[in-house]
Amino acid sequence: MEILEKMRCFMEPESIALIGVSRNTDSDSFNVLKNLIHYGFQGKIYPINPKANEILGFKAYTDIREIPEDIDLAVIITPRGTVPDRVKECTEKGVSALVIIAQGFADSDNEGKMLQEKVIEIARKGKTRIMGPNTFGVINAYRGLSTALPRFELAKTPVGVISQSGIFFVGLSNIMFGKAIDIGDCCDIDFADSLAYFEDDNDIKVVLLHMEGVSDGQGFFEMANRVSNKKPLIALKSGRSEIGRIAAQSHTGSIVGKDEIYDAVFKETGVIRANDEEEAEDLIKSFLTFPPMKGKKIGVMTWAGSTGVITVDACEKHGLKVIDLSGSTLDMIRKLSPPSWLPLGNPVDIWACMGLKGFNLANFRDEFKIILEALLADENSDGVVAIIPDFLVLFYSELWDISTVVKEAAEKYPNKPIAFSIFGPKGGLTEKLNETGKTVVFNSCEKAVNALAKLNEYYEFVTTQVDRLKAEDC
Amino acid sequence: MEILEKMRCFMEPESIALIGVSRNTDSDSFNVLKNLIHYGFQGKIYPINPKANEILGFKAYTDIREIPEDIDLAVIITPRGTVPDRVKECTEKGVSALVIIAQGFADSDNEGKMLQEKVIEIARKGKTRIMGPNTFGVINAYRGLSTALPRFELAKTPVGVISQSGIFFVGLSNIMFGKAIDIGDCCDIDFADSLAYFEDDNDIKVVLLHMEGVSDGQGFFEMANRVSNKKPLIALKSGRSEIGRIAAQSHTGSIVGKDEIYDAVFKETGVIRANDEEEAEDLIKSFLTFPPMKGKKIGVMTWAGSTGVITVDACEKHGLKVIDLSGSTLDMIRKLSPPSWLPLGNPVDIWACMGLKGFNLANFRDEFKIILEALLADENSDGVVAIIPDFLVLFYSELWDISTVVKEAAEKYPNKPIAFSIFGPKGGLTEKLNETGKTVVFNSCEKAVNALAKLNEYYEFVTTQVDRLKAEDC
Repeated sequence: MEILEKMRCFMEPESIALIGVSRNTDSDSFNVLKNLIHYGFQGKIYPINPKANEILGFKAYTDIREIPEDIDLAVIITPRGTVPDRVKECTEKGVSALVIIAQGFADSDNEGKMLQEKVIEIARKGKTRIMGPNTFGVINAYRGLSTALPRFELAKTPVGVISQSGIFFVGLSNIMFGKAIDIGDCCDIDFADSLAYFEDDNDIKVVLLHMEGVSDGQGFFEMANRVSNKKPLIALKSGRSEIGRIAAQSHTGSIVGKDEIYDAVFKETGVIRANDEEEAEDLIKSFLTFPPMKGKKIGVMTWAGSTGVITVDACEKHGLKVIDLSGSTLDMIRKLSPPSWLPLGNPVDIWACMGLKGFNLANFRDEFKIILEALLADENSDGVVAIIPDFLVLFYSELWDISTVVKEAAEKYPNKPIAFSIFGPKGGLTEKLNETGKTVVFNSCEKAVNALAKLNEYYEFVTTQVDRLKAEDC
Repeated sequence: MEILEKMRCFMEPESIALIGVSRNTDSDSFNVLKNLIHYGFQGKIYPINPKANEILGFKAYTDIREIPEDIDLAVIITPRGTVPDRVKECTEKGVSALVIIAQGFADSDNEGKMLQEKVIEIARKGKTRIMGPNTFGVINAYRGLSTALPRFELAKTPVGVISQSGIFFVGLSNIMFGKAIDIGDCCDIDFADSLAYFEDDNDIKVVLLHMEGVSDGQGFFEMANRVSNKKPLIALKSGRSEIGRIAAQSHTGSIVGKDEIYDAVFKETGVIRANDEEEAEDLIKSFLTFPPMKGKKIGVMTWAGSTGVITVDACEKHGLKVIDLSGSTLDMIRKLSPPSWLPLGNPVDIWACMGLKGFNLANFRDEFKIILEALLADENSDGVVAIIPDFLVLFYSELWDISTVVKEAAEKYPNKPIAFSIFGPKGGLTEKLNETGKTVVFNSCEKAVNALAKLNEYYEFVTTQVDRLKAEDC
């Protein structure tokens, strides 16, 4: 597949030419060469700057065509007016992959539009594929590679991003991207091409798509459908509103369609849509951490009746079901609770279950374990949401730390997700739960429920596709 | 006003009787007496426990009627079966305010329902008002008072809460409640009574309502309307869904009405509804920090086009307007940007505004200041949303710290809120911005927009009410 080879030249180049890289290598100079050295990039680097003989110890060339070896990836850092000539030189050199950093093309004035047409025309004659313009290019933390002007922290995470904006290169609040592709104004390389790279890439387990618009709708549909059968794709689609669409057009120059069409396409292709940055992060963490949520039935355990009610509301809103527990689970819970504290059921009231032994915190962990494992064992649950305050913030310390209980339960019942919402001030329990690698702590009860619902949505997509393929085989 | 005097006995008692307080004073004993000593409660405390002569140095009584002085507040900590007799003794003693901690009443079986009816009957004959049952009672951090079993951190914050659940006593993630009322199963003291306390309470500037149901709808309507004219009320209303309503009924035994009715009542009374715990916290912080948002026009400044598009979407969703900036503002911005980087406008692209001087970070703060102050000065903005990544997490340190710029701008333009969304990993900028006391940092662009929209909703409620009152005066 030709596009895959091209994408590998972008993402895993053996040699890079930096066209127009500055001699200024101060700490605030946004110098790509300096960044690559800092990251420990292993391939060959060729600075191109007619005013320099060498930069940071690297021999500088006047023209890319002078370089005696093949170039996989070239990055053009010069202003827009000079770009067509530089592109022409790259095609003559036979460069496979080209990043154009500058903005001021189709997103700008008539001169910019003309320049962009010229660039495309030149590129089409050669075998050079173009990313951008108006892009930071690519990040591949597994190879110490970033073509972005600012220096970011690179981290080898299993999360990829395809965006139309360099801002995603900084990562989300608590998630860095191991590989990032900024398709920018998308004059050539687009979502479908970028998805092709991630399809069989073993480093990356989840891919975030930041989308404003798609030019090749059919291509996106086919690739998204293929890739989301192999790994979850999460979309942060903006330009939802009429005015947002106009803003998006001026930002990337791309054609932005009706929001409802995107909703339908995402549903059909198994892409999970996130409403905002925080939800995108919640979903990425959930897909990385949890086993599949195989059904819609949910067990809820809560330290307070109120947060149980809030969670039940959220389940109805997001399509999960809080159904009756089995007789044996109820028997187990009944043994813990004072007889007058009715009704027993789902949600399970942890506070009530501490009641029989007189709220002795020394018993809390054991009682939490009994309830959690009963809910996981119950055939009437496909996953569990637990809501407790973080009393580690107060004076109870080790008595309240249920992280070991959660880790053991998750290992004993590896087929059901256990999601947490920690109510109130944080005293360290969130970190302890995160350290288990077995659960995700959400900022509200509803966010926990929503994540499990989206997990189930993805599971249903994949299994339905498999059934469809099997039926086609018969 | 009689109810206000009663509520002061709950919230500001000179004397407390703890009926059934345990002799067990271990660190995990949930001992209210021990907690009150820890908090430094200044009033008189009378433990009542027939099995003890003294507890923690306090003389213990067998019966509340033996106490030689008046009792403002009594807390009954005994199991449900004993509660009616204890209530009777309290009415005979002439206690004004009574908290019943135990659960297992109207929320439970027939015996519980019968017990509750008995309690109400007894109370109605005397002058004793009852909070609960199934409650943690009250917190007043300004007086070192908490009647809750677990020990919480008390903090003299300007935030109050009226809830139907003790879990709110722990606070929200980053907000503690200076005063808290848990009306529990609400057999007597209800939302209207509790709101009456907060109406002219100078300690409390914002009140959160956690609501599952209201028994006295008319009373709530009148008090909510009165109080929200004086300070913002934020409602976290659960029991939205059919099944959530059933769960709420079993939790507090209260009658839970159609969700649409609550929406209408909130709108009419100026109560701001929050969807989840995180939004409630966002709104509380916003009301405490920002000046009123007097109109719907918003100026957006963003480090990336993409987050501008996301913010514009959010404005349309939440009813704010991203309109054209005035000519003088555009001129100011034009001077900063390379001429080919069109179009100039709202949102303002900070990255582009750094372009003319070649992305020198040394100029970043000055350029940020020019844009921010131009947006604040512009007649076409009633507030500003700024979106930037936190490059303090990388290597830029002090060059990226715009907290002083924000503080000065907020002081220069004290009538417009400046909201932030920080994109990506946090490197300390959020804390620096928080320390200014002039802005709030939100977890996504949409959350920032939503908060400003709700601020404007409240402003419009208050000014419309004032206009209505003026019209009635004429």
